[in-house]
Amino acid sequence: MTSPNGLICFTNCLLPQEDGALVHKDLWIDERRGVILDSQKTFFLRKERPDRVIDLGGNILSPGFIDIQINGAYNFDFSIYEGDDEAYRAGLRTVAEKIVETGVTSLLPTIITQERSLYPKLLHLLRPYSSTGSATLLGWHAEGPFIQFAKRGAHAPQFLLSAQNGLKSFDEVYGAENLAVTEDWLMAGEGEDGPVGVRVITAAPEVEGVGSSIEELTRRGIVFSIGHSIASTGLATAAVQSGARLITHLFNAMPQLHHRDPSIIGLLGASPHLSSPPTSPVSPTFPTGASALHRVPSGVKRAAAEKGPQATSEAFDDVQTPPQTPVLRAHDIGELSLQKGKVAEMSFERPFYEMIVDGIHSHPNSVRLAYSSYPEGCVLITDAMKILDPNLKDGVHEWRDGKRFVKAGDKLYLEGTDTLAGSVVTLDKCVRNFSRFTGCSLGEAIKCATYNPAKCLGIEHKKGTLRPGADADLVVLDRKGKVLGTWVRGHEVWKRESS
Amino acid sequence: MTSPNGLICFTNCLLPQEDGALVHKDLWIDERRGVILDSQKTFFLRKERPDRVIDLGGNILSPGFIDIQINGAYNFDFSIYEGDDEAYRAGLRTVAEKIVETGVTSLLPTIITQERSLYPKLLHLLRPYSSTGSATLLGWHAEGPFIQFAKRGAHAPQFLLSAQNGLKSFDEVYGAENLAVTEDWLMAGEGEDGPVGVRVITAAPEVEGVGSSIEELTRRGIVFSIGHSIASTGLATAAVQSGARLITHLFNAMPQLHHRDPSIIGLLGASPHLSSPPTSPVSPTFPTGASALHRVPSGVKRAAAEKGPQATSEAFDDVQTPPQTPVLRAHDIGELSLQKGKVAEMSFERPFYEMIVDGIHSHPNSVRLAYSSYPEGCVLITDAMKILDPNLKDGVHEWRDGKRFVKAGDKLYLEGTDTLAGSVVTLDKCVRNFSRFTGCSLGEAIKCATYNPAKCLGIEHKKGTLRPGADADLVVLDRKGKVLGTWVRGHEVWKRESS
Repeated sequence: MTSPNGLICFTNCLLPQEDGALVHKDLWIDERRGVILDSQKTFFLRKERPDRVIDLGGNILSPGFIDIQINGAYNFDFSIYEGDDEAYRAGLRTVAEKIVETGVTSLLPTIITQERSLYPKLLHLLRPYSSTGSATLLGWHAEGPFIQFAKRGAHAPQFLLSAQNGLKSFDEVYGAENLAVTEDWLMAGEGEDGPVGVRVITAAPEVEGVGSSIEELTRRGIVFSIGHSIASTGLATAAVQSGARLITHLFNAMPQLHHRDPSIIGLLGASPHLSSPPTSPVSPTFPTGASALHRVPSGVKRAAAEKGPQATSEAFDDVQTPPQTPVLRAHDIGELSLQKGKVAEMSFERPFYEMIVDGIHSHPNSVRLAYSSYPEGCVLITDAMKILDPNLKDGVHEWRDGKRFVKAGDKLYLEGTDTLAGSVVTLDKCVRNFSRFTGCSLGEAIKCATYNPAKCLGIEHKKGTLRPGADADLVVLDRKGKVLGTWVRGHEVWKRESS
Repeated sequence: MTSPNGLICFTNCLLPQEDGALVHKDLWIDERRGVILDSQKTFFLRKERPDRVIDLGGNILSPGFIDIQINGAYNFDFSIYEGDDEAYRAGLRTVAEKIVETGVTSLLPTIITQERSLYPKLLHLLRPYSSTGSATLLGWHAEGPFIQFAKRGAHAPQFLLSAQNGLKSFDEVYGAENLAVTEDWLMAGEGEDGPVGVRVITAAPEVEGVGSSIEELTRRGIVFSIGHSIASTGLATAAVQSGARLITHLFNAMPQLHHRDPSIIGLLGASPHLSSPPTSPVSPTFPTGASALHRVPSGVKRAAAEKGPQATSEAFDDVQTPPQTPVLRAHDIGELSLQKGKVAEMSFERPFYEMIVDGIHSHPNSVRLAYSSYPEGCVLITDAMKILDPNLKDGVHEWRDGKRFVKAGDKLYLEGTDTLAGSVVTLDKCVRNFSRFTGCSLGEAIKCATYNPAKCLGIEHKKGTLRPGADADLVVLDRKGKVLGTWVRGHEVWKRESS
């Protein structure tokens, strides 16, 4: 059913606001252009009211959910490419079409560490994609291969890489065209018709060549996310100063919070007010043991440069430290930027952080502790594996590289191990869990799956919001957060069959 | 200089409020009774204004600071008794007289683990004590001996005890008269002339017999504080449900925050909203290796009892588990109270938590993370050693039991080790550090050294507040938090010499 004049008014509903509130208000959309309207302006300009009015019976009309870390679903794994572009594209379409039942209207396919020659191919296939009737594929999230061996989780150790040549290594591995600043990635978001292009890289700042690349990656419009890492407090702080904007699945694949070197988790408590020297951090061990070479973020480089040529040379020349020395010299310099009170002088914004709120990956107390320390940064993700499918049964399932995993309820681990291998939770369930674990309102939980991820990706003008001009990606939820229906760009793409 | 009519008005000053705000307002006190007045009521009743008006020049007039964990100062160690009651009392008086220069007007002498026969003697000597011209001694804080061997820190291992006979063990060790509910401990706070009596016990809930004693200790008006402990999330939660009201020096002498078993630190994120089963915790190892016997808090006992005689018998009969089994059965039962959704049914209040904000014991990021997750619970302490003295030089100092410690700046550790041994920081410096580390206002930092500790101890009607009727214990601070003068019960006891 379409509206004769192309306008639809949703009424008798609660609208989640960007501050987490839920307010009783109507929402107007233009179904032809697929965007949300300013009802007052529209009325004055067009002198007409929507021909179609939809009474939502007091339910919630939320921006569609955005999942920025998802490995696959409905039996398709974004990380498996079997030589057939069409088959891969078909797999993507399947996920995009089906996932709307979980309230997700935008997702960022995530590929875990690959055999390196596959990257240019895969990332090219993962250009933004938008189609009538299905969720929008925003681009890609490359988790690896520049990650910490000691925190690799389920990533294949033989494919991990260091970035010895800094940014050049990134260009070589991912394909320079996929990291370019000038091409259509950034154009995609300009018009109102194309999908927004998004690229996220999860890497470990302490891996050789990574830290020094963050600033340039960020300048190219890429979201750098700290993850699978043992970065010390100093190094993690320097990464954020260089532009790192996100923490990949907080708590998982990183050091526990140590009170004297709170590391990555501690960034949630980092403060621009800090100008005192922190205490010595625990020195990280170098992942491969082969070399302790490191490049460091250029922000740190500047700080060190002020100490004169001696310090600069110590920190940044490619001095080969003997393999038996686990202490990173660049790391020590990383601390300098704090010791010299640089933090206080720089604008420091805490990074967003992802959480998998399936009740398995983190204890509810940990979830609440993180959220209450920095609510504005919380981004809910599923980190779901290909077996994500609300209808799938428990048991052993094939994965990749001959490995298999076991699904037991919401828990998913590598067969024969205790290693968690992503999740099988749906994002709408994460939203409900989150509200229950933290005691926050449903509106505040919704914000963590809509506005916060959109803002992290820099697309909050188009997605994750009900602002006029944004895409009319919507999900109808009952008062308990159950998905009743989903809309993409002004069209209803899924509706729960009434029981 | 006294006031002819006994009334003093402080004017041109900022008063810290119980919500952390600083407001421009006058404060009236009655110097004869030593209490804060309601100026309006006083004026209408007495038809007179204060004869003495003190212009504070725009500085802050704060409630006096309260230190609820301090081991000694000015070369006197509360934990050392050399057989001479008078010498010990003289030592106490020295500390009480001198410490007012740090803004502290009330303190709780803390004794660390002792040879057991000393307890009844020491605790008796530590009755509340108040004298003109010095800080009030509120009572005692017994840290040990019922603590976890694996987290003993600087406590003497040979003096650690389990509480095999539950509450009886506490009575035997501390002396029943010191734990009694009916005697003058509780009377002391009733009148306006006697000091308030306060008793705090730091113990580990997982130590045999401790958990099951919390409820009765609490009923006797004792503040139970969880510390030097490896309690799992379930056991720590059960301890709080049984009445535990405080966490001893958060972060130190407890497990790091593990996201799947966030343990004691995770209590800061605990929520009454939680009704889902948490995931399995990491099993703690039993401290002595001799026995895995455990008693658990009675709240848990009730939960288990509902499962029938079988569960009760498994959990609470004195079943000897073989020493090689590191898993605590009672611990598993502890989890039950969560799994069965008991938390959601019970009123659950998060405990207060102490922090030593010297920049040494915890990284500023950790401090801010904890504070932002639960600001209302934050209590600043010094945990200072006997060498606390703003004028003392760095170097090696005698401690006790033939041990020595090294002071290097604000850092204090056991000679020849890296073990931190309390601190040498003053509470006024902690307040300033705290404001700087967290970015909170000075008023909010002051609250953590005044109102919060008072509320934790249940004495916020008398101490840590500027409410009418409270003791006129006051500290004058400049806008940066430097102590300019200190008042106790209406009398100026210390004043900074103008430079």
